[in-house]
Amino acid sequence: MTENEKSYPPEFTDERGLALASNIIDYQLNHGSLLKHIDLAAPFPEGPTTCSPVGVTVFPTLFPREQFERAHELQPIYNELYCAVAEDEEWIFDTIQPLLPIDPLAAALWEIYTQVKQMGHAQDISAGIFRSDYMIQGPGVDFPVSHTGCNVSLKQVEFNTFSCAGGTHASKAGDMHRYLARTGAYRSDGNVSVSYEALPRNPILPSLAACLGDAHEAYGPKRSDQASEKGVLFVVQPNNFNVADERPIEYALWDLDTPVPACRAEFPSDILDYTTLTESRELLFHPPWLPKTIEVSVVYMRAGYEVHEYDAAGKEARLRLELSAAVKCPSLLGHICTFKKVQCALIASGALERFVSPVEAEMLRSTFMAMYPLDESELGMHARRLATDPVLARDYILKPSLEGGGHNVFGDDIPDFLASTPEEKWAAYILMQRIVPPSAANVLLSPRGLDSGPVVSELGVFGTCLWKRGRVLRNSVAGWSFKTKDEEVNEMSVVKGYGCFDTPLLF
Amino acid sequence: MTENEKSYPPEFTDERGLALASNIIDYQLNHGSLLKHIDLAAPFPEGPTTCSPVGVTVFPTLFPREQFERAHELQPIYNELYCAVAEDEEWIFDTIQPLLPIDPLAAALWEIYTQVKQMGHAQDISAGIFRSDYMIQGPGVDFPVSHTGCNVSLKQVEFNTFSCAGGTHASKAGDMHRYLARTGAYRSDGNVSVSYEALPRNPILPSLAACLGDAHEAYGPKRSDQASEKGVLFVVQPNNFNVADERPIEYALWDLDTPVPACRAEFPSDILDYTTLTESRELLFHPPWLPKTIEVSVVYMRAGYEVHEYDAAGKEARLRLELSAAVKCPSLLGHICTFKKVQCALIASGALERFVSPVEAEMLRSTFMAMYPLDESELGMHARRLATDPVLARDYILKPSLEGGGHNVFGDDIPDFLASTPEEKWAAYILMQRIVPPSAANVLLSPRGLDSGPVVSELGVFGTCLWKRGRVLRNSVAGWSFKTKDEEVNEMSVVKGYGCFDTPLLF
Repeated sequence: MTENEKSYPPEFTDERGLALASNIIDYQLNHGSLLKHIDLAAPFPEGPTTCSPVGVTVFPTLFPREQFERAHELQPIYNELYCAVAEDEEWIFDTIQPLLPIDPLAAALWEIYTQVKQMGHAQDISAGIFRSDYMIQGPGVDFPVSHTGCNVSLKQVEFNTFSCAGGTHASKAGDMHRYLARTGAYRSDGNVSVSYEALPRNPILPSLAACLGDAHEAYGPKRSDQASEKGVLFVVQPNNFNVADERPIEYALWDLDTPVPACRAEFPSDILDYTTLTESRELLFHPPWLPKTIEVSVVYMRAGYEVHEYDAAGKEARLRLELSAAVKCPSLLGHICTFKKVQCALIASGALERFVSPVEAEMLRSTFMAMYPLDESELGMHARRLATDPVLARDYILKPSLEGGGHNVFGDDIPDFLASTPEEKWAAYILMQRIVPPSAANVLLSPRGLDSGPVVSELGVFGTCLWKRGRVLRNSVAGWSFKTKDEEVNEMSVVKGYGCFDTPLLF
Repeated sequence: MTENEKSYPPEFTDERGLALASNIIDYQLNHGSLLKHIDLAAPFPEGPTTCSPVGVTVFPTLFPREQFERAHELQPIYNELYCAVAEDEEWIFDTIQPLLPIDPLAAALWEIYTQVKQMGHAQDISAGIFRSDYMIQGPGVDFPVSHTGCNVSLKQVEFNTFSCAGGTHASKAGDMHRYLARTGAYRSDGNVSVSYEALPRNPILPSLAACLGDAHEAYGPKRSDQASEKGVLFVVQPNNFNVADERPIEYALWDLDTPVPACRAEFPSDILDYTTLTESRELLFHPPWLPKTIEVSVVYMRAGYEVHEYDAAGKEARLRLELSAAVKCPSLLGHICTFKKVQCALIASGALERFVSPVEAEMLRSTFMAMYPLDESELGMHARRLATDPVLARDYILKPSLEGGGHNVFGDDIPDFLASTPEEKWAAYILMQRIVPPSAANVLLSPRGLDSGPVVSELGVFGTCLWKRGRVLRNSVAGWSFKTKDEEVNEMSVVKGYGCFDTPLLF
């Protein structure tokens, strides 16, 4: 890093800020970097449709190239690990069994899994779209600094195996920052700053389409005479505000050299109303708005990760999907791998070696922060002491096993939260040591307006997999997401307006 | 046309309509088929930015292939005509002279032209982005019908030479209808209807970028040492709601094989504040938000078409642009060609032959509707009798010479309007016979919701030109726009929510 870069980002006057923001907002509006407003009181067509730009950073944020590349090098190993875990029913059951009486989502998924197992699995190929999230651990370090040799390392926040979002938004933000760099918007007199080449490209859309396309291919030829063609079914939530993240994957499937039909069903209502299983368990999709019947080759889940989705209708819908011969992205066991309890169990001594080689295990382990169950085991009792101590708790985050984020309890708040939570439910949580990332400078542009100050970033690396009874058929690094927030705010939630999509400026 | 197509468009149930509308809205949101909301009471960053889908048709609308192709064949001749007119100062002056005392926009433009002429023109190359608008004349004809041989013809609504909009929106709507056709959304049992191939592609964005890129090239090398590079300046209106139509042209310039820098200035403030003319009349652009100075190779006008824009500041800004050595798109005389008075004058017997060959003149003339000045000439007095007669007036539209549309007076309303307008101002209007187009069926999706019923369409064909002292250097057909409205509504205004972007379904 040169002396010049120490003043990164470039000076941000009001006039320049407004011009940059105007450029950014127009770019977002033209490229679908937006969130749809959902007005449940007057849904379309009663009320008009409106949307707003999703939060983005004005400048790309500094991020060490070494750690960016390292995260990409690790992804095939993480893919391999989770493909293996997702096939190991026994290990998964041992891991989540304590959750079943206290975590209704875990209980619902396991109940469905058990039912499917009784009737027999109609498909032995599974697909996975994973995302491993990291922060840089570097207490007391600020970017930019003379960083070479400074003590920073890559630490995993969490590993997601289900309904991984944000990839499309990330690629749009990356395109936008590269566009701005190209137009000279980031140049400032005397300060070399953002070079176009230092902003990595993001292959996420072609990668995800290729993965789903491969799964579609692996399904084999259409089997049912009742269907006119086979296609990938996107299972989505109703009243979906995040269509700008999901829909482009559908468009990318239609745009493949050999177009793959993609269709869309809301969970659970459209599944119950418009799908049927044939005797040989082909899943047929025949909604009234399509004058044809589609045999579902791949079920791509972008719904079904919240406990409230598993009422009787939700369970019935998920069971139907899982009973089918379609390739599931992911399988039920693959879904359960996203539980924090699984991440926590993999940290236990020797756990990784069950699934990957000792060398690989060591590489993955270097990204782990301390993480404890909050159960009644010896380790759990130690964690309970940490979590209930007002001083010690500050260095930790309490995470429910539920997927999705946004339900975490941070530091100081943990003792009071636990005091108000019945002790028999504590085991549904894990306690994780907080990562203390270096602080960088940037300006956030979100629905709250412009906000300049110290920020911290989170890197997600996507992986795509296809596996068959433990044999990995596809293992690829698929792209990345990069989110940045005010360092004073705990939550990275983009939807709540805290987190902003960003592009790493590699140095 | 087969018997099947007579039931076009396919049946439109509520369920199907909502599913189609949802697909359409999501597509629009992802592809910038949007209008930006401008809240003057709380402009950014005081208030959040929101946007909404622009009005589009749910189905493509039937349009005869023969007339679509004919409009494209005519465009090079129209381009040639207007390039020639735009160089004929004498003819233009004769034509608009009667307007000067009563039309302040004409007066302002002519005043600026006279000033530039006194100081000498610093650039003899001009560029033009034109759009010729047509409707099908076919009284009593409905689509679909057994149309072959039925008496329909292509008639020109108007010819636009200034700030022609809608091309980008049209291409996005076309992409959307092609996407929907591809997904099978338009198929209905037993009725062959929308084939992917019958929906023409729209090359408008690469065409406009190529034209501006050629003009940039024709400007020659950067001349001023004060500038670091040369670039195309987009001159735009403040508080611009239509960034989704304009910005993609900038992006397309940056994306050319040899990227052309594009920048953006609001008219007139940014022109006055951040441009200067060198002694040799290079136009330099140095806004505080760019750490460099750009020499403007091409001034592309997307502002300056409304009379209120020509206060003292507006006149000064336009004068500076026109005095400069930059290639203007279009020149001042080219701008004046957009006046209805010019269109009206070209209809006069023998007028076309001044500019094009007799054969070409005959081809163009076949697209003309009757059109009259409302002055005190013999023809004008005839027109006044038509316009003030409550019965005869019904077949006519009264149009102000001003560009931009939206100020027309239709049929029944003309006599009362003229009665309330001082007679000395009548000469600022022309009277045009109404085109009575065939009626087709479709469903409109606009901020007003879904609206099903009989519709009529307007086809615009874009042309791009470059000329130098009467010699045409570039003459291309550049793409099309296609707008459709409820046949009961007079105005085609998309912004007011009446007109919808559409794709011709050629038959």
